[in-house]
Amino acid sequence: MKKVVIGVDVGGTNLRAALINESGKIMSRKSRPSEAKKGIDFVTENLINLINETKKEKKIYGIGIGIPGIIDSSTGVLTQAPNISKVKNYPFKEILLNKLGPDIPVILENDANCAAVGEWWIGAGKDVNSLIMLTLGTGLGGGIILRGKLWSGVNGMGGEIGHMTIDPDGPKCNCGNYGCLESFASAEAIRRMVKEELNDKNLKTILRDEIKHSSIHDIPEIVGKAAKKGDRFSIGIWKTVGMGLGIAIANLTNVLNVEMIIIGGGLSNSWDLFFKFTTKEAKKRGLRAPMENVEINKCELGDDAGLLGAAYLALNENR
Amino acid sequence: MKKVVIGVDVGGTNLRAALINESGKIMSRKSRPSEAKKGIDFVTENLINLINETKKEKKIYGIGIGIPGIIDSSTGVLTQAPNISKVKNYPFKEILLNKLGPDIPVILENDANCAAVGEWWIGAGKDVNSLIMLTLGTGLGGGIILRGKLWSGVNGMGGEIGHMTIDPDGPKCNCGNYGCLESFASAEAIRRMVKEELNDKNLKTILRDEIKHSSIHDIPEIVGKAAKKGDRFSIGIWKTVGMGLGIAIANLTNVLNVEMIIIGGGLSNSWDLFFKFTTKEAKKRGLRAPMENVEINKCELGDDAGLLGAAYLALNENR
Repeated sequence: MKKVVIGVDVGGTNLRAALINESGKIMSRKSRPSEAKKGIDFVTENLINLINETKKEKKIYGIGIGIPGIIDSSTGVLTQAPNISKVKNYPFKEILLNKLGPDIPVILENDANCAAVGEWWIGAGKDVNSLIMLTLGTGLGGGIILRGKLWSGVNGMGGEIGHMTIDPDGPKCNCGNYGCLESFASAEAIRRMVKEELNDKNLKTILRDEIKHSSIHDIPEIVGKAAKKGDRFSIGIWKTVGMGLGIAIANLTNVLNVEMIIIGGGLSNSWDLFFKFTTKEAKKRGLRAPMENVEINKCELGDDAGLLGAAYLALNENR
Repeated sequence: MKKVVIGVDVGGTNLRAALINESGKIMSRKSRPSEAKKGIDFVTENLINLINETKKEKKIYGIGIGIPGIIDSSTGVLTQAPNISKVKNYPFKEILLNKLGPDIPVILENDANCAAVGEWWIGAGKDVNSLIMLTLGTGLGGGIILRGKLWSGVNGMGGEIGHMTIDPDGPKCNCGNYGCLESFASAEAIRRMVKEELNDKNLKTILRDEIKHSSIHDIPEIVGKAAKKGDRFSIGIWKTVGMGLGIAIANLTNVLNVEMIIIGGGLSNSWDLFFKFTTKEAKKRGLRAPMENVEINKCELGDDAGLLGAAYLALNENR
C-alpha cells in the first residue's frame, strides 16, 4: 500500500491541508481560516485542529508544513514571518510535536521552498535535476533545487531571492534594504507603484477610475486588465515587473547554471503581460552559454505546489 | 602509500604544475610560460610538455587542470576563455587525452572553481561544508561549494559571480552587460576607473604622478599605495570595490545561506583598504538571519588555491 502524508500550506488568510500519496495524488482536502492577524498562537491552534481532523481518515506516514517565514532548520524555530502577527523566534516545531505527539514526524519548511520542491516533483520541473522557482505573491519567495535536492542553505534560511539587490538605488523594501527584486516584482510592489505614480495629476491612465472603488488587494488584477486594454501606464508597470525578473534570472543563471527557472505565485497569471520583458532583459544581461542552457517556464501546479512539496518532504526526509 | 596527482594552473602568463599528495602536500613544482597570446595551440603544447616533465617523477593517479574559461563539463569543451587567444569551442579534453594517452584520468575545471575547492579542502574553508569563493584578479571569478561538493552548474558553467548585475546602469563590462560585479571589483575595473577619472583635469590626486611611468598592469598596486598615503581619490576607488563586493555578498548570502564567503585573488592583498566598506554594505543590504550566520574571510592559500583544488578534483573525481 502506498504511503500517505499530510501536506499543509500555511497562508496569511487560510490554512489548507491535503492527504497526499507517494505518487503525488491529492486524495482529499480540508481548509480553515488561519487567523494570522490575531497572532501565531491562533495559527498554531487552527493548524493543530486542521491536522487532527485530516489525520483521522488514514494512517499517516508524516506531516509536511509550508510556512511563509524563515525557519531555522536545525531547531525548527520560526525566526520571522512578516504575514503572521507576533512571531519572533517562535519554537514552532517543538510546540507542534508537543501537541500532536511524537508518533508522526513533522517537517517544517519555508513555503516558497515547498513550492519549488512540488514543481520539481510532479510539476513544470519534473524532468530536470536543478531548478530555481520564483513565487510572485504579496512578496517574492524563492526555492532552489540542485542535484534533485532542496538547497535551503546551511540554516534553512536560503532561497531569499526576493531580497537580491537588483538596483542599489531602487525603492525601499520591507526588509529595510533598497532595490530588492521584491520591490520590483510582487503584488506589493505593483500596489506601491500605482499609489506613488497616481499622485502625479498629469498622468493619464484609466486606472485612476478603475481602482476608485476597489480594495487594495485587487490592484494587481486591475492593472492587468488595464494593460490588456492598452493603458500605457499599466503596461509600463508590467514592464518594470518583467525587467526586474529578467535581471534576477540572468544573475541566478550566471551564478548557478541551473536547467530551469520556474515562475509561480498569483502574479504568474499575468505571464503574458510581463514575460516578453523578462526574456529580453535576461538575454541582454546573462552570459551566452548558461542562458542557452536554461528554460524559463510558468509553474504547473498553481496553488497546490506548496502543499505537494511539503508532502514530498514528509515522504522523503531522512529519519 | 599515498596517492599522488598533478595539479595544474593555467594562467594567462604562466603554466604552473605541482605534484600533490592526498594530504594536500605540494611535493614539487614546475612552471613555464603559457604563451596564451599566441593562441590555445601553444598553450596546449606547453601544457603537455609541462605535464610530461612532471609526471616522470612519480606514479600519477590523475591530473587536475584549472583553466581561466568556461568549460562544458559534459564534453570537456572549452567554450570561451577571454585571456587565451583563438578559443572558441575548443575540444580541450579530447586533445589532451589524445596527447597524454588514456592511462591517466584528466579533469578540467574552471580556475576559480578550483580555487574554491582548494580553500575548502585545506584553506580558509577547511572547517565548513558550504562556501562561496570570490577570486579578484584581472576579472572576478567565483566558485561555490555546497554540501562539501563543488556546484559548478548543470553544464559546468556556473559560479560566474563576476557577471552578477549589481547596478543595472553601471559601467559596461567586457561581457557586454552593464553593471556587472566585475566592473566594480577587479583589477580591470580599477584600471578603468583610474583612466576615466584622471581625464578630469580638476581632480586632485597623487596618482597622476605616480602612474606616469608605470605599466598599466601595476595600477591596482599603485592605487593601493596611494590610498595608504591618504590620497582621497584612491581611497574612493577602494570604497567602490568594497561596496560592490558588499552588494554581491549580501545577494549571495540571501540566496544561498552558506557558512563562509572567501575573498581571494591578487586584489585580496589590499583587504585592509576595501574590507570595511564590504562588511558595512553587506550588513546594510543582507537579511539579518543569514548574515549573522556567514563568515567573510580572506583566502589562506594564495596563488596555490587553484593548483590544490585541481589536485583535489583529480584525487576524488568518480571514475
